[in-house]
Amino acid sequence: MSRIKCVVEYDGFNYMGFQVQDDLDTVEKRITDAIYNMTGEEVKIYPSGRTDRKVHAKGQVFHFESTRSVKPYGWVLGINAFLPKDIRILSAEEVDSNFHARFSAIKKEYHYYIMKQDDVFLRRYAVYIPKLDITIIREALNKLVGTHDFKGFASAKIDSRKETVKTIYEIKLNETDRMLEFIFIGDGFLKYQIRKMMGLIIEIGAKREPLSKIDDVFKTLDPKLTNKMAKGEGLFLDKVYY
Amino acid sequence: MSRIKCVVEYDGFNYMGFQVQDDLDTVEKRITDAIYNMTGEEVKIYPSGRTDRKVHAKGQVFHFESTRSVKPYGWVLGINAFLPKDIRILSAEEVDSNFHARFSAIKKEYHYYIMKQDDVFLRRYAVYIPKLDITIIREALNKLVGTHDFKGFASAKIDSRKETVKTIYEIKLNETDRMLEFIFIGDGFLKYQIRKMMGLIIEIGAKREPLSKIDDVFKTLDPKLTNKMAKGEGLFLDKVYY
Repeated sequence: MSRIKCVVEYDGFNYMGFQVQDDLDTVEKRITDAIYNMTGEEVKIYPSGRTDRKVHAKGQVFHFESTRSVKPYGWVLGINAFLPKDIRILSAEEVDSNFHARFSAIKKEYHYYIMKQDDVFLRRYAVYIPKLDITIIREALNKLVGTHDFKGFASAKIDSRKETVKTIYEIKLNETDRMLEFIFIGDGFLKYQIRKMMGLIIEIGAKREPLSKIDDVFKTLDPKLTNKMAKGEGLFLDKVYY
Repeated sequence: MSRIKCVVEYDGFNYMGFQVQDDLDTVEKRITDAIYNMTGEEVKIYPSGRTDRKVHAKGQVFHFESTRSVKPYGWVLGINAFLPKDIRILSAEEVDSNFHARFSAIKKEYHYYIMKQDDVFLRRYAVYIPKLDITIIREALNKLVGTHDFKGFASAKIDSRKETVKTIYEIKLNETDRMLEFIFIGDGFLKYQIRKMMGLIIEIGAKREPLSKIDDVFKTLDPKLTNKMAKGEGLFLDKVYY
C-alpha cells in the first residue's frame, strides 16, 4: 500500500464544491471516478480542506492510498486521462504514511479577485464591484490580520467544539487598473471565513458599513453580523504549505 | 428613425455562433431579445460579420435602426440590463444612415491563442498544443501575409460568386512562456479562413505537414487540402476598423 500526494487545479465554476454530496457533481467525485477508471480501485481521497460551490483551486492538495504500483508521473497522466478538462492533476508524489493532506498542512494561501472594470472573459473568476474605497479597505485588512477568534466570520452552523482561534499571517492587496487581488495567508481558515471577510470588506469599501463593524464581529463572535458573503467565483485556493 | 452602432464583447463558448439560426442560442438572438425587452421594438441587427460556434469577440460591431429616442449611453445601459453576463455592449453611438457595420468596415483584426502549457482557467479561451516549432511557424506566417486568393482556406460551401482574393496586411506572433498569440490584420476574412489557416499552421509547426503545403493550397485553391480546422475557442474577433 502506498500513499500518494497530489496537487490539483480546477475551475470550480461548474461544480457543487469539492466534497462528495450524494450524487451532485463535485470535484472529489470526478477525481475518485477518474482513479477508479484508471485503476479499478475505489479509493477515498483526503483533501487539505473543502472548497465551496464555484470556488477554484490552483494548488489544492489531496492524498489517497493505493495498492497499485504506479510511478508518480504515471498517476498524473493516468488520472488526467479520465478527468474533465476543467480539473487537472499538476503533480503527484509518494509520501510517508504519516503525511496527511489536511492535518500536515501548516499554512494556506487564498486569493480573491474583484474586477474594477467589468470583463466578460473574467466573470467566472472574479466579481465585478466598481468604486470601492481602497484606503479604507487597507485599514480593514490591517484589522483582520493577526491572531483572532474568527467565529463571527464562520458559518453559523460550525461545530461548537471546533477551534475558531486562527492566525492570518499576512493579507496583501495588489491593485491594477482593472483588478484588485487580495492574498490571504494563514494557518487555516474556517468554513466561509474568507468569503465572509471579503463580504464585509466590500461593504466597508462601498461605505455601506463602518470600519468598526470588524471590531463588533470580533467582540460579539456573532456570525449573523457577517451575513453578506462574497461570491464563490472570485475565490481561489492558491497554495497549501506543508 | 436613428441608426445606432454598437461595439460588443462576448464569451462565445456557450453560444452556437453569432447569427440567428432557428431557435439556437446565438449572440444575435440574445442581443435582439435584449433590445426587444428594452424598447418593445423588433429590430434587425447587422454585424460586421458572423463568428462561429465558441468564437469570442472583444470588439464585434453591429448596427440597427430604432424609432426610440435614447441617448447613446442609454443604449449601453439599457441593452446590457437585459443581456446575460457573457455578452456586454461596450459602447454605442448614433451614426449616419450611410454607415453599415459590414460594408463600411475597412480592416479586421483577429487573435488566436495557443497554450504552450495546459491551464484549466484558459481552456475556454485558448487551445493547448505543446511542442510546436516556432521558427517554421514564422516562415508559414510569412507565406500567408499579402494579397492571395484564399479560396483554398475557405469553407468548401462558399458561394462561388464570392470574391476570395483578400489581403492580409500583417500577421504578428507574440510568444510568452505560456502562450502563443497570433494576430491577423486584413481587409476581410472568408468563412473558416482563420481557423483553417491556423489548422495548417499547427500541422506545419508539429511537423505533420511540410511548409510547402501552403503553396499547394494557394495553387490548387482546393478547400479539401485544409480540412484540419483549428478549434473555435482559441479565436477572438478583436477589432473592426472603419
